[in-house]
Amino acid sequence: MLQADLTDVLAIHALKARYFRTMDSKDWDGLRACFADDLIADFRQSTGGWDEAQLIHGADAYLAMIAPMLAEVATVHHGHMPEIEFTGADEASGIWAMEDKLWVNEGSALPFKWLHGYGHYHEQYRKDGGVWRIAAIKLTRLRVDAG
Amino acid sequence: MLQADLTDVLAIHALKARYFRTMDSKDWDGLRACFADDLIADFRQSTGGWDEAQLIHGADAYLAMIAPMLAEVATVHHGHMPEIEFTGADEASGIWAMEDKLWVNEGSALPFKWLHGYGHYHEQYRKDGGVWRIAAIKLTRLRVDAG
Amino acid sequence: MLQADLTDVLAIHALKARYFRTMDSKDWDGLRACFADDLIADFRQSTGGWDEAQLIHGADAYLAMIAPMLAEVATVHHGHMPEIEFTGADEASGIWAMEDKLWVNEGSALPFKWLHGYGHYHEQYRKDGGVWRIAAIKLTRLRVDAG
Repeated sequence: MLQADLTDVLAIHALKARYFRTMDSKDWDGLRACFADDLIADFRQSTGGWDEAQLIHGADAYLAMIAPMLAEVATVHHGHMPEIEFTGADEASGIWAMEDKLWVNEGSALPFKWLHGYGHYHEQYRKDGGVWRIAAIKLTRLRVDAG
Repeated sequence: MLQADLTDVLAIHALKARYFRTMDSKDWDGLRACFADDLIADFRQSTGGWDEAQLIHGADAYLAMIAPMLAEVATVHHGHMPEIEFTGADEASGIWAMEDKLWVNEGSALPFKWLHGYGHYHEQYRKDGGVWRIAAIKLTRLRVDAG
Repeated sequence: MLQADLTDVLAIHALKARYFRTMDSKDWDGLRACFADDLIADFRQSTGGWDEAQLIHGADAYLAMIAPMLAEVATVHHGHMPEIEFTGADEASGIWAMEDKLWVNEGSALPFKWLHGYGHYHEQYRKDGGVWRIAAIKLTRLRVDAG
């Protein structure tokens, strides 16, 4: 692997670290900065449908969905064991094992009080102006418990 | 550290990532490819005995044991905080913190319904034909809860 | 990033790995070796006060506090998703997501039987004589459950 690639691998690791930290600390501007403007987000396995209409197009649209949804929820998301591969000069893909816990406050519209899930993120990254961002994110689940 | 060593460290990280992902997604061919043919697997602390006869010799033997055992079990294995050291030109050792959860379906022969464990993997790696593989794996436990 | 920096990032990752492993295996000499002599440890969010007097000054003082406190406690600490930044030629800062579990034996003075927490370590590192050590550690919490 070239030295430039080693640097990029660690930069993508740090990008995903910021994703998790800003999500769980509700730093929505910081989370937004992790994404390319034309983000495609695929959480269809969690939300129950597989048609194209349930894909989320655009980082702003994703933030407009996730920020109010998590307003009354304490969250912990942890990522593990990245597999990063370069698919072009400024493009890479990655897989991360993940675990998440949600504790839902009174008054939230979410249909559960707590959730504990496990799965993998499958992601695409793009480097633009020297900065890596998440261009596509898809979550697959090994198991979800909720109550 | 030499650039070649940095590349090798990340390659070993990615190898262990494939180990976890293929295990939990029951991709047995993918898991088999993580191991050297002459794998030595030491799960004696989990299985209750410490005599030599309980070591597993060979990746095929390990797969022949683990694949049917986990057929009716949902698993999540997460690895953390690697410590990789080179012990030769094409040899390295590693320690990983780990946590695993098992949920056992009806009909399994396993003597518990669920298991939640914590511990460390102590491993040996060997590079053969440019490809790193796990040559030896040993699991020590900090704690195991089961019911 | 320079090759020297890549090496340092991985060295700091390995340092923190030793911190977790020596803590959970109660290898107090090994844990002491992770810290600079003049360590500043800030666990004030966990211990309930924010005045300067509750900061711990010195690695020896920290070990003198933590080792007896954990004598009758089984612990699992896991770290995730490092963000390392260099702040000088031989200085760096880091943030780590973390999760910890404590199981308290009979006879311990701790005011709970178990604890399960989540948060972030915010740390400073210093390289002295070619060896990276933790110079400052602060723990912030996303959530703590105990009973």
